[in-house]
Amino acid sequence: MRENFATAVDRAVRAKGNPCVVGIDPAVQRISPILFSELGVSQERIQSEQAENILYAFGKLVIDAVADLVPVVKPQSAYYEVYGSFGMRALEKTIQYAKQKGLLVVLDAKRGDIAETSEAYAEAYLGELGLANGGVDCITLNPYLGPDSIEPFAAVAQRTGKGIFVCVRTSNPGGAFIQSRLSEGKPIYAYVSEMIASMQSSEDRYGHIGAVVGATVSEEAKAIRKLLPRSIFLVPGLGAQGGSPDTVRSCFDEEGMGALVNSSRGIIFPKGNQKTIEELVAQMREATHGFIKLVQTCRQARL
Amino acid sequence: MRENFATAVDRAVRAKGNPCVVGIDPAVQRISPILFSELGVSQERIQSEQAENILYAFGKLVIDAVADLVPVVKPQSAYYEVYGSFGMRALEKTIQYAKQKGLLVVLDAKRGDIAETSEAYAEAYLGELGLANGGVDCITLNPYLGPDSIEPFAAVAQRTGKGIFVCVRTSNPGGAFIQSRLSEGKPIYAYVSEMIASMQSSEDRYGHIGAVVGATVSEEAKAIRKLLPRSIFLVPGLGAQGGSPDTVRSCFDEEGMGALVNSSRGIIFPKGNQKTIEELVAQMREATHGFIKLVQTCRQARL
Repeated sequence: MRENFATAVDRAVRAKGNPCVVGIDPAVQRISPILFSELGVSQERIQSEQAENILYAFGKLVIDAVADLVPVVKPQSAYYEVYGSFGMRALEKTIQYAKQKGLLVVLDAKRGDIAETSEAYAEAYLGELGLANGGVDCITLNPYLGPDSIEPFAAVAQRTGKGIFVCVRTSNPGGAFIQSRLSEGKPIYAYVSEMIASMQSSEDRYGHIGAVVGATVSEEAKAIRKLLPRSIFLVPGLGAQGGSPDTVRSCFDEEGMGALVNSSRGIIFPKGNQKTIEELVAQMREATHGFIKLVQTCRQARL
Repeated sequence: MRENFATAVDRAVRAKGNPCVVGIDPAVQRISPILFSELGVSQERIQSEQAENILYAFGKLVIDAVADLVPVVKPQSAYYEVYGSFGMRALEKTIQYAKQKGLLVVLDAKRGDIAETSEAYAEAYLGELGLANGGVDCITLNPYLGPDSIEPFAAVAQRTGKGIFVCVRTSNPGGAFIQSRLSEGKPIYAYVSEMIASMQSSEDRYGHIGAVVGATVSEEAKAIRKLLPRSIFLVPGLGAQGGSPDTVRSCFDEEGMGALVNSSRGIIFPKGNQKTIEELVAQMREATHGFIKLVQTCRQARL
């Protein structure tokens, strides 16, 4: 039997020596022109097979650049869905490639629907026959539809040894609009936290139900850590979105574990012109090293 | 220039004489065995091209059965995503076929993410180069991430003459968990309603930003109708989920317009055995007639 998600994360983080996630967000207009010239494709209005080729080539490039440095990659589904079935094929190939390279794959898709539909989504991404032969290791979810929209994912994840990250308090400016509103003195994110805490099933240190908690939310992250001692946190927003190292620090446990910290744009779209693919890869690696260093400082401050 | 979404809905509803939506939820294990025998495919563990063929054949069958009866169809993305890029191709072909048959297409996908990612999703489904050449007419959205997760969809929809339906109060049992929680005496769905009301831009009777309001939520639907006088409602839950005709009645305006009422399972999976495709189609049409009659009763009670 496959090890469970929390064990797989623990092992991968210890093996690489850091808990960093590289987000793969292939926004075509932001991809370095050097990749387009390499493939002989125009950057304007690409579609169908060309889009599939560019998205996959980009994902492969990122994976090759970071596979020896970080334990996890996180493709963002939206950028693949832009190109319909061609984009989905690129996503499948990218996921397969990342798994071959020994990386854990979190799909950022923020799904969630009525129970029967959530079950279909769960099988699509976490099931034995799911996307890219066996699905991804973990998927992000949106809890607005309540417990019955999350439970089917938790059940499938448990069966297949996978995980889920439920959006509890997101990193974007509008995140507070619903999530931080108080009801009987308690914010909505606290109700969501209690809901997912009640769904954890194993007795291990960490369960298969994690939480998305933005690096931008400061005191709220500390409160959520208390409410969810057994959830692994997926923490975006430390890079481009201006999150704080102090907030990231409070997401780790006393052993510097229990959180995965993501950077997307800051790594995959390095600033400046690149003259060769090698130069682009070198810049991605340099950005990754910088990000790892920053995250490790947060972790060590926790110890 | 293309007419806007609200005008398109108004015209389509008047042309067909009813505001009914047929949901296309191709859960493979529920599809009539007669379609599998027809295509010479086993119903167990189908995948790749077989899945694409079955899903498209099923969608086409439903569309052919109901195209002269109703103005709108609503494919549920989850059931296509189960089969990855093959499923997405079936979805693209199904959308194209529905548009050819003069139907409006609402994609049920409940997307929503941080602003930059929502922009990618919006282009994917509502953009000029979106899914199935030009995208769908409308997409359902999840507001948990707040205003900046919805605005990019509203902007793209306005540019392309499309619409969005934001989940305000959903029909499922867990819908109340976040949505009906009170903050300063006001439920969360009321804050979401105010948020989307402030984003409507045109001065027409109805704007391009609609709301998903379950037929199961009774008094809350009446409250939301008051908060959102200019939003078209997408109302699921009257069939299989046990919603009430009285609630549906309160979603219509004084002219019996302003709401689209959905039935999925009750129409596309008729009970009983079917010996031929013709029998299956006849049963779907009969169920559609029954559903239209029920919805028209609700509408007329409003006049």
